[in-house]
Amino acid sequence: MDVIILSPLENVIIEKLAEIVGEQFISTDDADLVSYSSDFMIDVFLKPDVVILPENTPQIAAIVKLANENSIAITPRGAGTATHGGSIAQGGILLDLTRMNKIKELDPISMIATVEPGVVYEDLNRITGKSGLWFPIEPPSGAVCTAGGMVGNNASGLMALKYGTTKDYVLALEVVLADGSIIKTGKSVLKSSSGYDLVHLFVGSEGTLGIITEITLRLIPKPMHLSTAFASFPSLNGLNDAMNAIYEIRRVLTPAGIELIDLQTQKAINEVEKEKLVPEVEILVIFEIHEFSAAGLEDQKDLIEGVARKHNCNEIHWAKDDEERDRMWKARKAATVVSVRSRTSTLLGDLIVPIKHVPAIIRFIQEVAREKDLLISIVGHAADGNIHYLIPFNQNESKKAFDAGDAIVYKTIELGGSITAEHGVGLEKIKYMELEHGESLSLMRAIKKILDPKGIMNPGKIFPAEKQ
Amino acid sequence: MDVIILSPLENVIIEKLAEIVGEQFISTDDADLVSYSSDFMIDVFLKPDVVILPENTPQIAAIVKLANENSIAITPRGAGTATHGGSIAQGGILLDLTRMNKIKELDPISMIATVEPGVVYEDLNRITGKSGLWFPIEPPSGAVCTAGGMVGNNASGLMALKYGTTKDYVLALEVVLADGSIIKTGKSVLKSSSGYDLVHLFVGSEGTLGIITEITLRLIPKPMHLSTAFASFPSLNGLNDAMNAIYEIRRVLTPAGIELIDLQTQKAINEVEKEKLVPEVEILVIFEIHEFSAAGLEDQKDLIEGVARKHNCNEIHWAKDDEERDRMWKARKAATVVSVRSRTSTLLGDLIVPIKHVPAIIRFIQEVAREKDLLISIVGHAADGNIHYLIPFNQNESKKAFDAGDAIVYKTIELGGSITAEHGVGLEKIKYMELEHGESLSLMRAIKKILDPKGIMNPGKIFPAEKQ
Repeated sequence: MDVIILSPLENVIIEKLAEIVGEQFISTDDADLVSYSSDFMIDVFLKPDVVILPENTPQIAAIVKLANENSIAITPRGAGTATHGGSIAQGGILLDLTRMNKIKELDPISMIATVEPGVVYEDLNRITGKSGLWFPIEPPSGAVCTAGGMVGNNASGLMALKYGTTKDYVLALEVVLADGSIIKTGKSVLKSSSGYDLVHLFVGSEGTLGIITEITLRLIPKPMHLSTAFASFPSLNGLNDAMNAIYEIRRVLTPAGIELIDLQTQKAINEVEKEKLVPEVEILVIFEIHEFSAAGLEDQKDLIEGVARKHNCNEIHWAKDDEERDRMWKARKAATVVSVRSRTSTLLGDLIVPIKHVPAIIRFIQEVAREKDLLISIVGHAADGNIHYLIPFNQNESKKAFDAGDAIVYKTIELGGSITAEHGVGLEKIKYMELEHGESLSLMRAIKKILDPKGIMNPGKIFPAEKQ
Repeated sequence: MDVIILSPLENVIIEKLAEIVGEQFISTDDADLVSYSSDFMIDVFLKPDVVILPENTPQIAAIVKLANENSIAITPRGAGTATHGGSIAQGGILLDLTRMNKIKELDPISMIATVEPGVVYEDLNRITGKSGLWFPIEPPSGAVCTAGGMVGNNASGLMALKYGTTKDYVLALEVVLADGSIIKTGKSVLKSSSGYDLVHLFVGSEGTLGIITEITLRLIPKPMHLSTAFASFPSLNGLNDAMNAIYEIRRVLTPAGIELIDLQTQKAINEVEKEKLVPEVEILVIFEIHEFSAAGLEDQKDLIEGVARKHNCNEIHWAKDDEERDRMWKARKAATVVSVRSRTSTLLGDLIVPIKHVPAIIRFIQEVAREKDLLISIVGHAADGNIHYLIPFNQNESKKAFDAGDAIVYKTIELGGSITAEHGVGLEKIKYMELEHGESLSLMRAIKKILDPKGIMNPGKIFPAEKQ
């Protein structure tokens, strides 16, 4: 890990920061610093020197200017729900953006919202929902995660198949650059061919290019009719059956989401939740469909059911009502946490492959699990190729768990895939960046250097240390 | 216009270029140079020193390396259907990419195609269509325009409302950088959070950052059922009626496309085509809907018809068959050329505003036309806010036509809009770039300088000359 370590901040700096935001919104108390020392990444704890909670863009501009003049690291953070260490800081300033949670404008005619980075995903959708509008990402952490964090990591969620990822909704940004200057880029319009796309350069840059202080999002109509099904593929060849069904369905129809849960994960869900939330079969697939009309929805159901049965699905059960639908999604959302309980730590993977290689990568993960005698759960957005795997382990299994993770990532790259589909690089995946990007990594570094010549913006993230 | 003028090329350079591609694929004949001296932008003719037609990436890398070593401008070009001067060159090398028209891979399971930049849009869709797959941009120039040009300009078309623009389909690129090095960026996967999004930095960069030599595109299923309608809004308040209907429809449903044609344009279409292709009413709206099922399609029709009639639409006519549907779209596609015939030149606009401001900008354009005694036709993708206006003029009307264009662009910016939604900046819109982007333009320049320190890549495009 190549985090730039900056010396503890002098008191005069702390005093100047306090002047900017007010005494009550800054802390150097160890108890506070500890509460910012981790995210959902395992086994990494890094403490900043100071935590500060700004209220508006001018405050942030003043903080960044001061940091830049004094070469102090500055790390932005939303809800801290990331899984890769992107929002924790070894020394320097931790910028907690959760006070900046205003919806600055909601234009229901243009179907556009402009928000501060600290607004919580579900809070935003509660407000836009009153106008029938939706920011359709649905990250499993939606009840707490913030718009800024979603933009910083290009987050996605359970409905990415139909609706895409955060980047597909960001029209414009206000950003405080490393020198404290404030730029606006993009417009509240749905298309543009006007110069370079700086908006998408900042999306997914994990706070390493600037502090995003305002986000303009396009919204879409909430679906009028929706339905969710559990489809069971019981044969030992259930993985191939399920994926063949998914391939055939995708060629004619784009469901909102298609999730795949392996037997290992199904058992863990039922055990931990203490009720039989999911059937236990070789492969369980969740289909979610959204339609404008009830008749259209029924036709989608018929198609999915016909294709699934052709591929040896022995049961497909559509939720009877919203309550049952919610229970189905509760099960899926539980999948990413249940496995943790059986061991002290869990390594969480976020790979993506071309979808034709989904069976190959899943089978490879299963082989690695057998070889290394690990229990690896697999759950994922099967239809877009994004597979999550969870490797729970005890302290004495640490090396073999990380070796397994490495082997899976190398296989992913070999299959033409990417090391992270929606979680981000942060600290955790730095070691794979050269392998994935080759020469393009130098270009990313060069862009970083223009925007942040002193390297104060979330240092130690994304990029491996440069060879001397 | 601030095109960098480079001295005529020495014979030794021409000889070296000929060695790279072969004698038959290079020309300095004036007749050939003239045929590359314009695109669909009015009144601008610029001749390159040499035209060269490479066959593959290594040839391009060698050409670019030679150009960079000798500080020679290099301008890439596809079919030359752009409307802003982006693909014409004053001196230097004109790189005609139309020989590079292979589909290198079509993966129907992963629903991904990898193509060379010279492949023609409709040729690509003919091949992918055999697998039921579609690259759904539908630019009116689709019969001739190339994938490389579409990526370079982030082109869109008649179905952007539902399907987005070219950038939404580009997953990965191979690019020859200004020093002749070849990079690959992005992967054949549907999502990524792995480092900076360089793919979208190149999309829309109009050949100023590198030569795109390979494009990986995601494809989607072709729609199973589709229908097209003409909806007439006859009242003097037809513009407001039509837009209110569109706003209400968009809040519950996303049609594939919604087009708006003003009376001026309707008359020109019928006159030039010598048949009554379109009704003549205050405002004519075309609705195009795509659905998985026939029943779903009928429900969409009912909704659209009900809302349109509520807002004083007196006739909505759905095409009875494919032939009638084709005739409707023929009329729409004719709209952008018919006006040209009444005068010697036509200024073509490509503005976009937040959709709530569509009535305001259209009314402003009509006022400008009245004030300046010009016949301005308006046709556009009304539901995404992208309005095209055509100002035909004779030579003696040139100043007032350009003044009208400027006034319309200033109003667009005032309404929070952008100077170009889908055509690009090229030469034509350079004069508005500072106004639109402010401080962000410096950041674009800085990125340009990293990637192209000598300024050889399509010089004189996008950026205004720097103040000394």
